[in-house]
Amino acid sequence: MEVPPPEELMHPLYVPNKTLMGPGPSNGSQRVLDSLSNPILGHMHKECFQIMDEIKAGVKHIFQTENVVTMCVSGSGHAGMETAFVNLVEDGDIVLLACTGLWGHRAAEMVKRVNGDVRYVESRFGRSLSIKEIEFAFEGHKPQVFFIAQGDSSTGILQQNLKEIGELCEKYNCLFVVDTVASLGGTEFLMDAWKVDMAYTGSQKVLGAPPGITPVSFSDRAIARIKARKTYVKSYYFDALLVGQYWNCFDGPRIYHHTISSTLLYGLREALAQFCTMGRKNVIRRHQECSHRLQCGVEEIGLEMLVPKANDRLPTVNTIKVPVGVDWRKVSDYAMRKYKLEISGGLGPTAEQVFRIGLMGENATYERVDLVLNILHEAIQSSKIPEKSKI
Amino acid sequence: MEVPPPEELMHPLYVPNKTLMGPGPSNGSQRVLDSLSNPILGHMHKECFQIMDEIKAGVKHIFQTENVVTMCVSGSGHAGMETAFVNLVEDGDIVLLACTGLWGHRAAEMVKRVNGDVRYVESRFGRSLSIKEIEFAFEGHKPQVFFIAQGDSSTGILQQNLKEIGELCEKYNCLFVVDTVASLGGTEFLMDAWKVDMAYTGSQKVLGAPPGITPVSFSDRAIARIKARKTYVKSYYFDALLVGQYWNCFDGPRIYHHTISSTLLYGLREALAQFCTMGRKNVIRRHQECSHRLQCGVEEIGLEMLVPKANDRLPTVNTIKVPVGVDWRKVSDYAMRKYKLEISGGLGPTAEQVFRIGLMGENATYERVDLVLNILHEAIQSSKIPEKSKI
Repeated sequence: MEVPPPEELMHPLYVPNKTLMGPGPSNGSQRVLDSLSNPILGHMHKECFQIMDEIKAGVKHIFQTENVVTMCVSGSGHAGMETAFVNLVEDGDIVLLACTGLWGHRAAEMVKRVNGDVRYVESRFGRSLSIKEIEFAFEGHKPQVFFIAQGDSSTGILQQNLKEIGELCEKYNCLFVVDTVASLGGTEFLMDAWKVDMAYTGSQKVLGAPPGITPVSFSDRAIARIKARKTYVKSYYFDALLVGQYWNCFDGPRIYHHTISSTLLYGLREALAQFCTMGRKNVIRRHQECSHRLQCGVEEIGLEMLVPKANDRLPTVNTIKVPVGVDWRKVSDYAMRKYKLEISGGLGPTAEQVFRIGLMGENATYERVDLVLNILHEAIQSSKIPEKSKI
Repeated sequence: MEVPPPEELMHPLYVPNKTLMGPGPSNGSQRVLDSLSNPILGHMHKECFQIMDEIKAGVKHIFQTENVVTMCVSGSGHAGMETAFVNLVEDGDIVLLACTGLWGHRAAEMVKRVNGDVRYVESRFGRSLSIKEIEFAFEGHKPQVFFIAQGDSSTGILQQNLKEIGELCEKYNCLFVVDTVASLGGTEFLMDAWKVDMAYTGSQKVLGAPPGITPVSFSDRAIARIKARKTYVKSYYFDALLVGQYWNCFDGPRIYHHTISSTLLYGLREALAQFCTMGRKNVIRRHQECSHRLQCGVEEIGLEMLVPKANDRLPTVNTIKVPVGVDWRKVSDYAMRKYKLEISGGLGPTAEQVFRIGLMGENATYERVDLVLNILHEAIQSSKIPEKSKI
């Protein structure tokens, strides 16, 4: 019995060109997209190693770190999160997860699978966590590892006090893990100065590279903890010491750990190069200015931000309350159908409650802010008209 | 203290165009490479889902399976291997690993990390395993899971008796895992007819898509075993039931499991479409004919294949003994320097002993076979000339 070739593969590939202003991925620049068509390179070729070295240097810059174990894992942002816990957590270790939205709970999904002892510290809805709340939780739980998302893309909350948390972690001899997937490049992040032990970010957000390759960095303290493990890291693919040997982070020759995707290296390399050309601080300021303009516009069209305190708002993923009587899905569908523009709904704790508007990379411009505001307004008005009264 | 932007990212990206005739990746076709520059799509957009569905249908065809859990994991071939063991193995399960080269040992690296009880059955050097040898090991070890690479890319050995092994596994109520990374498309593979419970393959070998996305398939029996697990799958990222929900393999809505790389989906989709257009059996025949031509040519230039029995030779990765007195590295360097042609050395048990010549996808043509033979011969002759007698 033969399984025949599928008829649908005889049709040409269809990829629409959309304006991606949800929580990510964002649109890639033409330079990034063009780079992806370059010939494939072997994973152990010297030109591939050179690109990896350039990426490593770029990642050190965007994280503001001199950690020798700075590299990428070959997977999505979730792979970055898994890389944190699979390396840093041993059976029974107490892991305190900060929840300002979905991502602390997603982290729990990973920690429990490596037999970590999951504890939570949850913020009040729509607010970041104060250092007092966190210290109270540290006193109660005495964690070995603490996790927080700098920006929670489900709620649009920005956690501003990472420096203070870093000091707290040092005081309690606790490893400090920060998810910067949605926040990096839209707000300041200083890995070394803030004593962060493990950070990862998304390639497909502010950077505007394709998804599938994820920058990660481990402090010397984190690496020492991994080297002192009594049990195996429960993953070969995400083992930081092995991936680090492939990325030339240690003394000794590079090893063949897995076949890296040269295609994704090209895209990330070009995205990092563009980021450097524009200037790190300029990029951050641009994202903040765009978010400010969006927030002002939201108020002007009679809408309300989910996060009450302006200081707690993530510039890259902006959460706007869905007005009473409006069906968010109709609004989102309208924008996509009529303008090929993505405006997302909520996720996890904000499901059905908010619009999420991403201002990241190519889409963090005043023109795009004005575009998305106009379309959002129009789509909401349209959604209020009963179907039968439309012609 | 600011970590400055790296100077090397100010230079343009440099990617040479090589002829990749090592054990993989192979060269992508122009159609595949062009597809990669398409705009990025959201991971929950309907056009992305459509491409995923098309890929699913294509993967069912190349594996010759009707398994509902047929999909991709977002990682390299090693991620496919890890997906097998992290899902199918629980603490203390006996896992019998067939070793005809490196890959059984690499599998052990993963099995031990999920607390599987590793056992081996090793072939004699340069030979495939007979069904008698395997049954003897089954009787001794009573494994819950059996693993074998259909083609071992380190030794160039092809395992021809998978159908018989499938019957053995059924008799012993043992799950049957087959690595087809290097072999698929170069030799017959019939997942359902041969009662294989889990298979994975490489995107970047015969298919000629970029690395970074890996087709996998689980039988109903394998899925039932996963659903009956007493302990968590030790990975969120590779959890087959979660990945399967994202790929719409089960009833119920798709979940957001991770952000898939639309870029890599495009490449794999186009590679599968080309494979289907050429015809599965034609592709396999072409690879076998090319390997046959290469083997004849090898003999003509006075070289010897590593694998003595022609029936045991993998058509896609051909292992040729390095002649006495020849430094394989000089030969490989010569071919790369002068012709941008990749001829690899050995790996694992064949390190320093063989040349490995890949005939996969775009490179499985008579023209490329003749090219690589001519260059190999020239490079060997050149390497025999003492440095000082060269002008």
